[in-house]
Amino acid sequence: MQAVEKLQQSYRPGTFLISDNMAIGDEGKCGGGGSKEKGRKNGVCSDASAKPITENDVRRDDNSSDPENPQLPGWFAEYSPLWPGQAHFLKIEKVLFEGKSQYQHMMVLESTAYGKVFVLDGALQLTEKDECAYQEMITHLPLCSIPKPQKVLLIGGGDGGILREISRHSSVVHIDICEMDMMLIDVYREFFPEVAVGYEDPRVRLHIMDGSEFLKSAQGGTYDAIIVDAFDPIRPEHEIFGSPFFEMVVKALREGGVMCIQAESLWFPSLNLPQLIHTFRNIFKGSVNYAWAPVPAYPSGVIGFLLCSTEGPRVDFTRPVNPLNHHDAASSLGVAKEPPKFYNAEMHSASFCLPSFARDRL
Amino acid sequence: MQAVEKLQQSYRPGTFLISDNMAIGDEGKCGGGGSKEKGRKNGVCSDASAKPITENDVRRDDNSSDPENPQLPGWFAEYSPLWPGQAHFLKIEKVLFEGKSQYQHMMVLESTAYGKVFVLDGALQLTEKDECAYQEMITHLPLCSIPKPQKVLLIGGGDGGILREISRHSSVVHIDICEMDMMLIDVYREFFPEVAVGYEDPRVRLHIMDGSEFLKSAQGGTYDAIIVDAFDPIRPEHEIFGSPFFEMVVKALREGGVMCIQAESLWFPSLNLPQLIHTFRNIFKGSVNYAWAPVPAYPSGVIGFLLCSTEGPRVDFTRPVNPLNHHDAASSLGVAKEPPKFYNAEMHSASFCLPSFARDRL
Repeated sequence: MQAVEKLQQSYRPGTFLISDNMAIGDEGKCGGGGSKEKGRKNGVCSDASAKPITENDVRRDDNSSDPENPQLPGWFAEYSPLWPGQAHFLKIEKVLFEGKSQYQHMMVLESTAYGKVFVLDGALQLTEKDECAYQEMITHLPLCSIPKPQKVLLIGGGDGGILREISRHSSVVHIDICEMDMMLIDVYREFFPEVAVGYEDPRVRLHIMDGSEFLKSAQGGTYDAIIVDAFDPIRPEHEIFGSPFFEMVVKALREGGVMCIQAESLWFPSLNLPQLIHTFRNIFKGSVNYAWAPVPAYPSGVIGFLLCSTEGPRVDFTRPVNPLNHHDAASSLGVAKEPPKFYNAEMHSASFCLPSFARDRL
Repeated sequence: MQAVEKLQQSYRPGTFLISDNMAIGDEGKCGGGGSKEKGRKNGVCSDASAKPITENDVRRDDNSSDPENPQLPGWFAEYSPLWPGQAHFLKIEKVLFEGKSQYQHMMVLESTAYGKVFVLDGALQLTEKDECAYQEMITHLPLCSIPKPQKVLLIGGGDGGILREISRHSSVVHIDICEMDMMLIDVYREFFPEVAVGYEDPRVRLHIMDGSEFLKSAQGGTYDAIIVDAFDPIRPEHEIFGSPFFEMVVKALREGGVMCIQAESLWFPSLNLPQLIHTFRNIFKGSVNYAWAPVPAYPSGVIGFLLCSTEGPRVDFTRPVNPLNHHDAASSLGVAKEPPKFYNAEMHSASFCLPSFARDRL
């Protein structure tokens, strides 16, 4: 496979770690696992200094007998420290790519159930089958909640899927993306061309740098929307809360501008929704809402989103004002090849409805 | 454990099959797997003749090396033929009960992540952690869609959780339940007292018999609502479609009466929603809608429900007319010990909103 060899040579030759018998099981616990949760982050470092990984960071020791995180040859397992004692196993037909950038370890797997799967430091990032739910919701929940968004900043999201979704909004004139890891982008371009298609939008400006650094130099009041697809979970004890990251996000947004960030599953006992919302209301001063969507490949089958707006024109996230008319292909395709698969205005509003066990605590 | 011994002695002594080293993994594929899917059914036999199982029906051979359905000692895995190449593994702390009735094989497991788990013929039925979502939605979606339901029939649902939820409706005066397997009821009573609490409602009449047989002798136009929690999935090629089962359900309902039945996950490629809705519109002649709810322990993390009404007063399932005011404990507890954990009127309406990939095919 020539393209894979090229990728390999461009970065760190010889870092394909999978053995011939495809004993990939032990990758499942590298980096802590958990959907979109990882020790390292894309696009942002909370301490504003990227720490390249070492060979030892990606554990290759044989731990198939670890009773807490057992492995099965030929199957990929993701263990989440957020919810121990369970694991979702995917049967793997083929390892299409494995390699390490200076920041992180990547694998592209061909699964029987979900199509191609991207794994970053052992944590499942997206699958061909259900990426539509995550990418469309994290993009259109913020962008459809405000009229005619023009300038958008994406922090992380190096796969390009969120760029593809932003591209559907014809009002947008400028898209900045901060992604630290150029190798990650190239791997997605090679193996997930329908996701990475977002980079083909001429409105996109790619910044290979840390998101915090980018925010430091961003002009105040620039963006209508900022989407953060760089770290998870959003827990009050998370290191990011001790940093000025979100204050910088607020500053970079215009009055009444909006932010969307992934925010754990409703079903995780670790999600303290009242505290999360309280914290973000203090920082953003506008509306703060929690939404969720089903994503079967993620632990517990759902993922949450936190929507915040700054002081200014009031934003009611639960009622989209800027609908994507997916039947009108010309106005909702952008660089995408087909209309949204998951998002529509009804799903937008429905995603803010919470089960009583979550709602009654707010 | 005295109570377990009593249960064991009451039915088939010596049918505890788990070995001392708790190699329960191979149970995971008995009966076909799949959430709520099972070769045998509770409460209904489509051919109206219950077939007792034999020892050989529950496979105990060592298949830990089966590459399609691999097992891990100390973990329970459910493989679904509806979606091959993936499995959700649960770490098991203890096997609390295992036994066989004349119809099926049962296990009660203590899991670290979901609390107690009930497994029927190898298929996960419910867990303490998320049973609220399934039981509340399959009950209140139909009962809150019609004003003041009075007579309700439950086919299957021997765990008692749906009875518990029906009990919250103070307008209800009579509840029939058809469950074929008395042992299943007793096991739930012993190990899941907060689920089986539904049997304590004095309005409940328990019929240990086949649901089809019960329907044959039911007086026409008797029920305001019929809930079917006895088999899954609902596929046009399913044997139940060749039987008069649903015609009998229609006959037993009053004009404008409603039925709710579990109906697969949106994410299963096998779910043909347009065909399913078309078929049921022909049978029921009234409204037919599909709803879904997140249930993390089930394959793909969600489960669907099919709602049907007969000819008569129009039923709009998407707008509850009979809200459960869960803040008014007196009117919404019944025999339950606490208000609904999952269901509320907003979730009711939201559950009918479908992702575009499903909605646009209707």
